[in-house]
Amino acid sequence: MTEPRPRARFVVVGGRATASPDFLLDDLPGTSGRLDLLLRCVRAALLVSHGVRRDVVAYLVLLGGPAAPRCARVTGADARFLRPDERSLATLLRKSLAAPREGGGFVTVRPGVAVADGGLDAALDDAGGGALWLLDEGGDDLRAARLAGGGGDTFVLGDHAGLDAATLAGLDARGARRVSVGPVSVHADDVVAVVHNELDRRAR
Amino acid sequence: MTEPRPRARFVVVGGRATASPDFLLDDLPGTSGRLDLLLRCVRAALLVSHGVRRDVVAYLVLLGGPAAPRCARVTGADARFLRPDERSLATLLRKSLAAPREGGGFVTVRPGVAVADGGLDAALDDAGGGALWLLDEGGDDLRAARLAGGGGDTFVLGDHAGLDAATLAGLDARGARRVSVGPVSVHADDVVAVVHNELDRRAR
Repeated sequence: MTEPRPRARFVVVGGRATASPDFLLDDLPGTSGRLDLLLRCVRAALLVSHGVRRDVVAYLVLLGGPAAPRCARVTGADARFLRPDERSLATLLRKSLAAPREGGGFVTVRPGVAVADGGLDAALDDAGGGALWLLDEGGDDLRAARLAGGGGDTFVLGDHAGLDAATLAGLDARGARRVSVGPVSVHADDVVAVVHNELDRRAR
Repeated sequence: MTEPRPRARFVVVGGRATASPDFLLDDLPGTSGRLDLLLRCVRAALLVSHGVRRDVVAYLVLLGGPAAPRCARVTGADARFLRPDERSLATLLRKSLAAPREGGGFVTVRPGVAVADGGLDAALDDAGGGALWLLDEGGDDLRAARLAGGGGDTFVLGDHAGLDAATLAGLDARGARRVSVGPVSVHADDVVAVVHNELDRRAR
């Protein structure tokens, strides 16, 4: 990686999201452990009107199925042909999960897409240092949060089922701070959209 | 309609979005005039974690194809089996557009889903009075906007191509005020997510 330090990283943990490419594009919610939810987060994290957020990296932590744990990383700076619809994103991820790899660390398998063995720790180790934020309904208000900005924020989100106790303990051990986007529990992709809005406003 | 006045209405105008049910579920972006974009707005407008926003109504203004103009209305208070993934939403809309109707006004064709002949005016006439907002990058900051709250805000959004001059003139004639969610031009569903966040915060 020779790109400049990204502005923000989003890590979405899919407790049952399949780590293998054997899901059906025609029934993502029913066959992929709700990979559809994670793919919508990729769109929200990386795509804007007529373009890609080049300074953002998204990690999908795939904890479901026999191939788990695996982590897929989509890097805005290198991504090509990233389309916003779920089926296109699912096709991209399916090809990426099916691609041959050597070694357990992140291996680039498509332009801007890399896959690694490992779960949340693989993502956070790759993300490096900086401020670590756990999106949590009980957290402090995002609008008042002392975000690092300019290159050092990593945001961790759970899926519809939330994060388990071991994952939460691991995040605590890394010093993650809990932050909330608002009083209503919304979908993970909407959380990403609101976080970006706050970052965009501060970068103005 | 005997439901209480909704908290907010979202009207998304699809300049080429097909008004007929002859699109392919396997290639929404390529065969539907970017209906995928509008369907993602339905999710953002109506769905939250583990539930439906019962106090929200979404209108999709479909201006593409030989059956145009048509308008589909999804009412949170009455919607059933609303799922977040694009394919499920596309299936629902396809059935709704294919359903027989009598008369040109809004006819309920599925639980919570009604279809009418007509374009943006059909949606806005149905939405009734209250504050009319046009999401526009050059508008005033949403966070400072004097939203009606509590039941009277209608938000109009364009698709990836924006709104044409005639549509903008019509909105001006209705007294629409321009409001912006932030400094970056984001996807329409992300705009909806940010608007909801502001409404949620003010309703707290």
